Amino acid sequence: MISKVEERLQALGVVLPQVPAPVAAYVPAKRVGDIIYSSGQTAWENGILRYPGRVGGTVTLNEAVQSARICAINCISALRSVADLDRIDILKVTGFVNADADFGDHPAVINGASELIIAAFGERGRHARCAVGTASLPSSASVELEILAVSVD
Amino acid sequence: MISKVEERLQALGVVLPQVPAPVAAYVPAKRVGDIIYSSGQTAWENGILRYPGRVGGTVTLNEAVQSARICAINCISALRSVADLDRIDILKVTGFVNADADFGDHPAVINGASELIIAAFGERGRHARCAVGTASLPSSASVELEILAVSVD
Amino acid sequence: MISKVEERLQALGVVLPQVPAPVAAYVPAKRVGDIIYSSGQTAWENGILRYPGRVGGTVTLNEAVQSARICAINCISALRSVADLDRIDILKVTGFVNADADFGDHPAVINGASELIIAAFGERGRHARCAVGTASLPSSASVELEILAVSVD
Repeated sequence: MISKVEERLQALGVVLPQVPAPVAAYVPAKRVGDIIYSSGQTAWENGILRYPGRVGGTVTLNEAVQSARICAINCISALRSVADLDRIDILKVTGFVNADADFGDHPAVINGASELIIAAFGERGRHARCAVGTASLPSSASVELEILAVSVD
Repeated sequence: MISKVEERLQALGVVLPQVPAPVAAYVPAKRVGDIIYSSGQTAWENGILRYPGRVGGTVTLNEAVQSARICAINCISALRSVADLDRIDILKVTGFVNADADFGDHPAVINGASELIIAAFGERGRHARCAVGTASLPSSASVELEILAVSVD
Repeated sequence: MISKVEERLQALGVVLPQVPAPVAAYVPAKRVGDIIYSSGQTAWENGILRYPGRVGGTVTLNEAVQSARICAINCISALRSVADLDRIDILKVTGFVNADADFGDHPAVINGASELIIAAFGERGRHARCAVGTASLPSSASVELEILAVSVD
């Protein structure tokens, strides 16, 4: 039996991938008590890093939005590895955008993640958020995302 | 009846603004159980983004300190939308400084936020903090700040 | 009587330093209830900032790994100031790497911190993690690290 969160995602054509394998000495998500943190996820999809590069440069705004959406899918997959998706409330999303120095539309980029999260989790998916620019990201990813959630009921 | 936190702020000449409207698909602050996260706030004041630009470049250190202070005011306003300010303990502040590559005085910038927070919350305002540089920020803001707090008693 | 965590560190030749003095208006670590956050730490060691500069530029990958390791030692020292190290579970590590724009191996850098944390805390040291690049860091440090932990049992 799959979760309602996954049912909603499937209605959008999204099937959660296997939990992303960490590329280093950490775990995809950690839970201590009711608090759950995903590791930072980039836009790996079927073994390929999608939309690498710098937003505002070689990566367009629309591509960056798609990149953020894939990051969110990978984060949700990571959360699923330690929690029941139907029993978590999304507290905070942090989005790092690998952007040109004169880029200023980080919120529009990270909306690609936020909108998917809200579609998947409904009211519990509404979250606080921070979106900032970075000078570089692992493997030249265009976006990196992390999610902090709390297990409820 | 206003909170003691707001009384202390008013003694400093600070009146909390209306909670900042999110510019995207998120909420100004989220509370799950006792844990409260503000969204990242920049120096919007009366509809104008104050002190935009790069610290160490077109934005001076003193202007950046003022920018951080306004960010803190906006974060506190966001926290107020989901919690009683007199019943929260400030756990962590993260400050992102849109700085030149050779800038190194991020702590002095974010002190503009930390000192206001301590003035407003007293002993409960003492916090862990992380201050880093960013390559870009939404709308070319000079500082972005977020606050993690916990509801107590 | 020292903690088992410190015993394991000493077996690796690491003696925790005095808690790092904050360089600004914050505390080295804050605890509210069971949740503990260290402040961001850089590679200060015996009063000297080790390995300053930009990773991929003047700072080599191996030096950056060492820088991250010292950051982790300083974070653990900060956590010790507010908690019993034998009773905390490491939830999340965030690593900021002051890197060249074309650098992409942030995970390898932050492994210098993660591996020390796992060696010190064992199973409880396994953590979620986010590693990103920054355009600048305080005093031109090459790495800044923060740890979120939860007190258990």
